[in-house]
Amino acid sequence: MSGSTYGKLFRVSTWGESHGKALGVVIDGCPAGVELCEADIQVLLDRRKPGQSRYVTQRKESDSVEILSGVFEGKTTGTPISLIVKNESQRSADYSEIASYYRPGHADYTFDEKYGFRDYRGGGRSSGRETIGRVAAGAVALKILDMLNIKVYAYAAAIGGIEYDRERFSMEERDNNPFAMPDAVAAEEIRKYADEKLSECNSMGGIIECVVKNMPAGIGEPVFEKLDANLAKAIMSIGAVKGFEIGDGFKVAASTGLENNDAFRMKDGKVVKATNHAGGILGGMSDGSDIILRAAVKPTPSIASIQQTVNKKGEEIDISIHGRHDPMIVPRAVVVVEAMTAITLVDMLFMGMTSRIDRIVEYYKNGD
Amino acid sequence: MSGSTYGKLFRVSTWGESHGKALGVVIDGCPAGVELCEADIQVLLDRRKPGQSRYVTQRKESDSVEILSGVFEGKTTGTPISLIVKNESQRSADYSEIASYYRPGHADYTFDEKYGFRDYRGGGRSSGRETIGRVAAGAVALKILDMLNIKVYAYAAAIGGIEYDRERFSMEERDNNPFAMPDAVAAEEIRKYADEKLSECNSMGGIIECVVKNMPAGIGEPVFEKLDANLAKAIMSIGAVKGFEIGDGFKVAASTGLENNDAFRMKDGKVVKATNHAGGILGGMSDGSDIILRAAVKPTPSIASIQQTVNKKGEEIDISIHGRHDPMIVPRAVVVVEAMTAITLVDMLFMGMTSRIDRIVEYYKNGD
Amino acid sequence: MSGSTYGKLFRVSTWGESHGKALGVVIDGCPAGVELCEADIQVLLDRRKPGQSRYVTQRKESDSVEILSGVFEGKTTGTPISLIVKNESQRSADYSEIASYYRPGHADYTFDEKYGFRDYRGGGRSSGRETIGRVAAGAVALKILDMLNIKVYAYAAAIGGIEYDRERFSMEERDNNPFAMPDAVAAEEIRKYADEKLSECNSMGGIIECVVKNMPAGIGEPVFEKLDANLAKAIMSIGAVKGFEIGDGFKVAASTGLENNDAFRMKDGKVVKATNHAGGILGGMSDGSDIILRAAVKPTPSIASIQQTVNKKGEEIDISIHGRHDPMIVPRAVVVVEAMTAITLVDMLFMGMTSRIDRIVEYYKNGD
Amino acid sequence: MSGSTYGKLFRVSTWGESHGKALGVVIDGCPAGVELCEADIQVLLDRRKPGQSRYVTQRKESDSVEILSGVFEGKTTGTPISLIVKNESQRSADYSEIASYYRPGHADYTFDEKYGFRDYRGGGRSSGRETIGRVAAGAVALKILDMLNIKVYAYAAAIGGIEYDRERFSMEERDNNPFAMPDAVAAEEIRKYADEKLSECNSMGGIIECVVKNMPAGIGEPVFEKLDANLAKAIMSIGAVKGFEIGDGFKVAASTGLENNDAFRMKDGKVVKATNHAGGILGGMSDGSDIILRAAVKPTPSIASIQQTVNKKGEEIDISIHGRHDPMIVPRAVVVVEAMTAITLVDMLFMGMTSRIDRIVEYYKNGD
Repeated sequence: MSGSTYGKLFRVSTWGESHGKALGVVIDGCPAGVELCEADIQVLLDRRKPGQSRYVTQRKESDSVEILSGVFEGKTTGTPISLIVKNESQRSADYSEIASYYRPGHADYTFDEKYGFRDYRGGGRSSGRETIGRVAAGAVALKILDMLNIKVYAYAAAIGGIEYDRERFSMEERDNNPFAMPDAVAAEEIRKYADEKLSECNSMGGIIECVVKNMPAGIGEPVFEKLDANLAKAIMSIGAVKGFEIGDGFKVAASTGLENNDAFRMKDGKVVKATNHAGGILGGMSDGSDIILRAAVKPTPSIASIQQTVNKKGEEIDISIHGRHDPMIVPRAVVVVEAMTAITLVDMLFMGMTSRIDRIVEYYKNGD
Repeated sequence: MSGSTYGKLFRVSTWGESHGKALGVVIDGCPAGVELCEADIQVLLDRRKPGQSRYVTQRKESDSVEILSGVFEGKTTGTPISLIVKNESQRSADYSEIASYYRPGHADYTFDEKYGFRDYRGGGRSSGRETIGRVAAGAVALKILDMLNIKVYAYAAAIGGIEYDRERFSMEERDNNPFAMPDAVAAEEIRKYADEKLSECNSMGGIIECVVKNMPAGIGEPVFEKLDANLAKAIMSIGAVKGFEIGDGFKVAASTGLENNDAFRMKDGKVVKATNHAGGILGGMSDGSDIILRAAVKPTPSIASIQQTVNKKGEEIDISIHGRHDPMIVPRAVVVVEAMTAITLVDMLFMGMTSRIDRIVEYYKNGD
Repeated sequence: MSGSTYGKLFRVSTWGESHGKALGVVIDGCPAGVELCEADIQVLLDRRKPGQSRYVTQRKESDSVEILSGVFEGKTTGTPISLIVKNESQRSADYSEIASYYRPGHADYTFDEKYGFRDYRGGGRSSGRETIGRVAAGAVALKILDMLNIKVYAYAAAIGGIEYDRERFSMEERDNNPFAMPDAVAAEEIRKYADEKLSECNSMGGIIECVVKNMPAGIGEPVFEKLDANLAKAIMSIGAVKGFEIGDGFKVAASTGLENNDAFRMKDGKVVKATNHAGGILGGMSDGSDIILRAAVKPTPSIASIQQTVNKKGEEIDISIHGRHDPMIVPRAVVVVEAMTAITLVDMLFMGMTSRIDRIVEYYKNGD
Repeated sequence: MSGSTYGKLFRVSTWGESHGKALGVVIDGCPAGVELCEADIQVLLDRRKPGQSRYVTQRKESDSVEILSGVFEGKTTGTPISLIVKNESQRSADYSEIASYYRPGHADYTFDEKYGFRDYRGGGRSSGRETIGRVAAGAVALKILDMLNIKVYAYAAAIGGIEYDRERFSMEERDNNPFAMPDAVAAEEIRKYADEKLSECNSMGGIIECVVKNMPAGIGEPVFEKLDANLAKAIMSIGAVKGFEIGDGFKVAASTGLENNDAFRMKDGKVVKATNHAGGILGGMSDGSDIILRAAVKPTPSIASIQQTVNKKGEEIDISIHGRHDPMIVPRAVVVVEAMTAITLVDMLFMGMTSRIDRIVEYYKNGD
């Protein structure tokens, strides 16, 4: 079945393979009147671009985006926005070998089981390059959120078990080191750890954290289209993510009601919460506090160390994967988490517009 | 927007409030020919029924299910299956007080923000009773999985920080204690912990684990309708769940590629994995190994201890919540996790039937 | 696959068979705050109720509706509205014979081909009683439209080739004759024609016309979710409808651009059209004029005259269908056309709320 | 809301404007293993290409399609297929004038009402060029149908009131005249009529008929996703279509049950129908007979004759539309009807695969 479209009202359909001609996305459901140019999108794509440090893949791609439709005189028209990024540095020859066997931790085996064969060049559709379309669409979603004064930012919360220290947290620092780590001291520790793992031809995992500020309360559609449920799906759909939590997440399991409940208080005439164990979500709806989510990212499966696997003939073999791979996924995936979060928020903000008849009546009166 | 329907091909629409006339579910997309009677569903509903121990709510409900449509001469007909459970023990008077304020950790505030008002009786739609429809539909999904020889079972992995010991794991034991804990020793420890928390008018959280056996490989639709992404959404949509992980989950964040990759091996002429850190999912598709997922469940927010909150007039007040509440959610939520997992698996097995043209051609040839 | 849900944002899921325990509908996506009681729905159900004249089926059913969820203190809460109508006059014994053969013009054969068997009692799910859920949901949609000052009314445009005369058109007259015909003279002619056909054990077809007044311009989502495309689907999904047209419909095929184009003019400071060949739709969106649509309804296939068919053993046989059948479908289907039109309009009005970023920004500002 | 995606399992998302950089389509849900090259698609696009006779627009476009993703080594991979056609002959200057007023019969006014402004160049998204994506996707659908031995062909049934004669019907003749008319005599009459209308700066409408052969019985999902309901939506979503009918269509309104019912008979051990008034659909499902549908196409609204309209300032003005317009839409729309029919059939054939549990069990057994 089709699976490359995300969203109900703000719909994002991505396409493209690692070593095909191009990758892209069609955004259907973007409202008319949003100012949009290629630079708005490029700035996000540049954050996931390869080759920016020795800790990510050395593949060289400019990843330049082109708007093919849906924008007229600098504004979105309400019709589908088609965005394309051409592949420039396909080195498919690197991959001829992997056609014949199944790389551990990769989707080679499951693709073959599902489809009968696969585009093995660079992982084809299961490559991390697939996220180009997500990030491009996320850039548009972020522009919409910005008009609603909603801010989304993600960063590395940990790499190889080395976490940021809340005391030293600095969003500015995030962009000063190759790990997207908002803590210079932790970043330095990670550098040492990463150098060690690189020298061992090994790879490492980590955690990405994402915060949403100024989210209006009441967004999310009980009981299945809850905001946290959709965020979970959005984030878990990113390759290599193996866990998702909101607010205190897995810590709640050992907590008690007295500790975990967030008291409601009044502040400046508004209802606020004294604490935020809930991570900004109550009953599957935003509660007006910051939304805080975390994603567990596995170590890159492509490693040059010797590994055991089987080939398509059913023989057990030893392999060593060469090519241009990221020794860690977290730094380049941070912007993907922002993108998927933003797309989900826009979609659910749109869904939220039909929850009250008085506002619908008002909307159509104003339209006259 | 609508949010009470789950699934794309096997569609489950639940309805009903805690203190309304009834609760129910419509299953649309169940294939014809599945043997189904009320007892098949009742057995699962009985596992989530209230009042079965002192560690759950004392509300008395028989939760008897009635099939209203979609079954003829003992078999599903392919048309919508309507299931209904009547409420018997509404004590709405208990709740008149909470109409005026927002219970911490509950959806009272967010419901009011979203809809302008709410059915406050017993939490209305945000009550745990909402899961009756999920469990009833899950029973039908489990019957379908059974015909495909796929097994799903969940249990408590931890309550209040007390985990089962893998050495002592026993599925039989799960049904011998009031905690759904597959380890008698851990269950005894939990009993002590729970008695202590009960005496403090406090509540406790936990972790539910779910295992799927015999899942065929290749199920899941890249890149957004991945199997793990949909399981995450399904499980996170259950009230009180704050985290989700698959396989090693959050542990992968501190792991390395060498440790985390599962080697492929041959066994009895079939491709298998030597380990299962991935929890049965590669690239968003089932890999033929056991699927293993975990959900973090928060402590029940309804506690009799004094708590701070605000009322609808914007006054800060102190409250103490009385009524018939579960001091822990995990035991009764175990079957809900099984149900949501089963519904998701059926839906995605159905989606998986159109991935290969040769099988489609064969399907329609056989149909002649 | 599931097929008993209609709509994207205002979602209607019907269930139930002609001779099952009950029929019903779940409405998911109705906004909170709509005043609703059972009488609002009953008034529409009464218009499709059997046994009201000798020109419709003599089956006796009160078709009393009960609201099971989604309404609190007289208002919708934004959660799913479950409506149920119990079957009272099942005479399944009438139908034991038809289990073994395929009635011409009915869905017996196709149901068996699709599902392998069928609930043959009264046609099961393919019975006209299936429309009870549509009409009940339509009543809710009409309440919403009423709050937006949008009016929907349908009537018989022709029965057995006898059309209403535009000069004599009177909406009041529609409810004065058993044919829903807005023209007393035509109604009288139809009576004679119908008596003749009844005496011949034959049945007759007709045309239903539906008009929508005060529809705001710009509703409909190019290029596939056009308003006319969705109206076509909604109306064609009603059993026995074989054709659909909007505005001049099939007449445009022999027209020219000069004749068919509707000139734009100014009236009271507003853009209007001098004529309305387009039937209120331009480019798949409402243009502010009356929407006018027509449905062609086939003669009831159940007739007592001798017919040729085959049985399940593959033998050619002669049959005569007895039981309590409508000799014409149009009179009772008029309210079904209104219902499906209303549901579609509400759904598309909701979809239309995200077409312009300025209005979305305004919506969320007002929400604070 | 998004509206540029069609289909549930075989999903087609089109994008692009008449005078933008390119137009295209993403097909998500095409099964793996379908042989596909650009020539397969080009052959259909060539049938809708402009400039092929004096009776269609003189705009010169090669409409060359390029496959950007989803095909590897000559076969579809199961991942999204991205197809692009570059615009070559944009003469946007022609259209600067129409920016300021509303062309009668066009979507200018409704676009402005919906979105606040519009890409006025050549009608932007509401141009007939939007159908390029439909036809390209339809070519893929037709390849799938061909593997299932299902044939789809459309042709002009009438232009300007001149119909084909069933005695002279010849599919070969369809491609011999510029009107897609399967009757040489009728084509010659149309030529005279068209020349007359051309000389008057007028335009003409017509009817397109489409036949589907070898459709298996039982396809279509009651009660809302009926095959005829979805075909109606698909065809009505094509610009300029104002009416849709299946089988005898509007003629059934004046017919009787005795005349209209198709008797079932046995032939070569199979159930067949003696006649086909139903047009191959019973109860919303295919019955194994030929599916026959018809679409009423309005005259091209762009005509050079003087017309009355209003401009954006609200002034009543007279206009004459110049540029390169089709004096009739039917000839180039025939292939669009084939495409939309084919896409719908594939989508519903896929939906039909989950209707019976025995076949699902068999499917997954075979998969091992």
